[in-house]
Amino acid sequence: MRLTVDPSTDPADYDFHHDIRVRFVETDAMGIVHHSNYVAYFEEARVAFLKHVGHPFTEWRAAGLESPVLEAYVKYRRPLNFDDLLTVHLKLADVTRATFQMAYLTTVGDTVHATGVTVHGCVTTDGRPTRLPAWLVELGTAT
Amino acid sequence: MRLTVDPSTDPADYDFHHDIRVRFVETDAMGIVHHSNYVAYFEEARVAFLKHVGHPFTEWRAAGLESPVLEAYVKYRRPLNFDDLLTVHLKLADVTRATFQMAYLTTVGDTVHATGVTVHGCVTTDGRPTRLPAWLVELGTAT
Amino acid sequence: MRLTVDPSTDPADYDFHHDIRVRFVETDAMGIVHHSNYVAYFEEARVAFLKHVGHPFTEWRAAGLESPVLEAYVKYRRPLNFDDLLTVHLKLADVTRATFQMAYLTTVGDTVHATGVTVHGCVTTDGRPTRLPAWLVELGTAT
Amino acid sequence: MRLTVDPSTDPADYDFHHDIRVRFVETDAMGIVHHSNYVAYFEEARVAFLKHVGHPFTEWRAAGLESPVLEAYVKYRRPLNFDDLLTVHLKLADVTRATFQMAYLTTVGDTVHATGVTVHGCVTTDGRPTRLPAWLVELGTAT
Repeated sequence: MRLTVDPSTDPADYDFHHDIRVRFVETDAMGIVHHSNYVAYFEEARVAFLKHVGHPFTEWRAAGLESPVLEAYVKYRRPLNFDDLLTVHLKLADVTRATFQMAYLTTVGDTVHATGVTVHGCVTTDGRPTRLPAWLVELGTAT
Repeated sequence: MRLTVDPSTDPADYDFHHDIRVRFVETDAMGIVHHSNYVAYFEEARVAFLKHVGHPFTEWRAAGLESPVLEAYVKYRRPLNFDDLLTVHLKLADVTRATFQMAYLTTVGDTVHATGVTVHGCVTTDGRPTRLPAWLVELGTAT
Repeated sequence: MRLTVDPSTDPADYDFHHDIRVRFVETDAMGIVHHSNYVAYFEEARVAFLKHVGHPFTEWRAAGLESPVLEAYVKYRRPLNFDDLLTVHLKLADVTRATFQMAYLTTVGDTVHATGVTVHGCVTTDGRPTRLPAWLVELGTAT
Repeated sequence: MRLTVDPSTDPADYDFHHDIRVRFVETDAMGIVHHSNYVAYFEEARVAFLKHVGHPFTEWRAAGLESPVLEAYVKYRRPLNFDDLLTVHLKLADVTRATFQMAYLTTVGDTVHATGVTVHGCVTTDGRPTRLPAWLVELGTAT
């Protein structure tokens, strides 16, 4: 397990946030959001974050780079319901030359719903591992 | 609307069938399968059919061809539940030089659950429309 | 086929619109949005429309009503890509005592991408068909 | 983190396996299976395992019980492609009175693709935590 980050439950510990409205298709027969959707919520927030710092995911792909997910972890604390407006708080963490981690906290209003971590590498579009872009290493150092 | 096929509710009118077990993730908060999953069920059956006739979808892709969905139609007759074993019956229909249609019937045991149609074109992987493969036109004539 | 509506490709013919940003999870190995996502996009727009007219879907469910999808149709005109900001234009159409239809047009900027129709019934949460709510019949008449 | 299990990469360490054919809808624009699908694959295998040991998930639900996912972890080792036949190997692990864990290994042929763990609780359908069923505690002890 490369995953080393312990995500905080305090929104103040995060750098960025992004709002998502729960879709009906994301619920399941328990009446709540199916647990597989959280990693897609995290990804949507990650995409918004990369755009926010001026390096959108489309730029990565245009440069022939991908940032595959190496590990993902979610801790489900309270269920999400249809039409909830959830906020995904996000923080870049533990950047090395080859990998970076993102910590996530999801809240609805003031209530904590989930925390999570993803670990990412960097590969060329033909699949060979490569160094992280310099701006990302710098951003990780600055944080 | 290019869609011209009126799918039968009699399994005997179909050429091929493929079984699928409903996953929990495919249900929604109404307690039944979410309606967006049916086109994915149809696609899984289509993939199995193309493999069955000796021209798997991976062969199409290796040959630089895609068969994009131009139109899709589903008629939901009875809901599907978690863990149902559904059978997708499939028939190739109305093949022209540029498009083909597939008719679908889904059953659980002897009960009819849905019918549907998809209309497909043929494009090269860089997106230009092209003729259907000869074997598909022949298969359509033979049916 | 109960579906009778022929959806216009002119945004001016629609009553309401709702924006959706394409997620990476919604793309497929053709590099474009998988066709099964469109009905979920339509649903998200429908949910936003019902909220806009003061009768959110959660109100329906609290009143013991569901509006199951009886039929769905999509015409895929141009592919959608990751991170596209699509606009779903929506119009209530052909309301009877037992069913209503919704017409959809999806655009990215000024470009038409897809059109579609869904047909809905009204059932109690134990599954018995029932009349549409009076406000919906009136709204359909007013349109 | 309640998750304590370190999943083995040796199929011989698992109790049960279940095969899944990758659907086209599960791929993304990187050309591989999107990472959010793995937890759904794990769930499908878990459902098959519970049926195999004579206590199908439908029985749980009929008894007014749910086993919500409290935590999920996936380590992505090699990408999965469209039409791959993956095998999910599964092992029940670390059963307490209130929670149980499942370890997973996914392989394609002899190649290891991913490992993962889910942690589950037991709640009544109105959401109150409750003890695990006795058979599950026994099964955990026997393993």
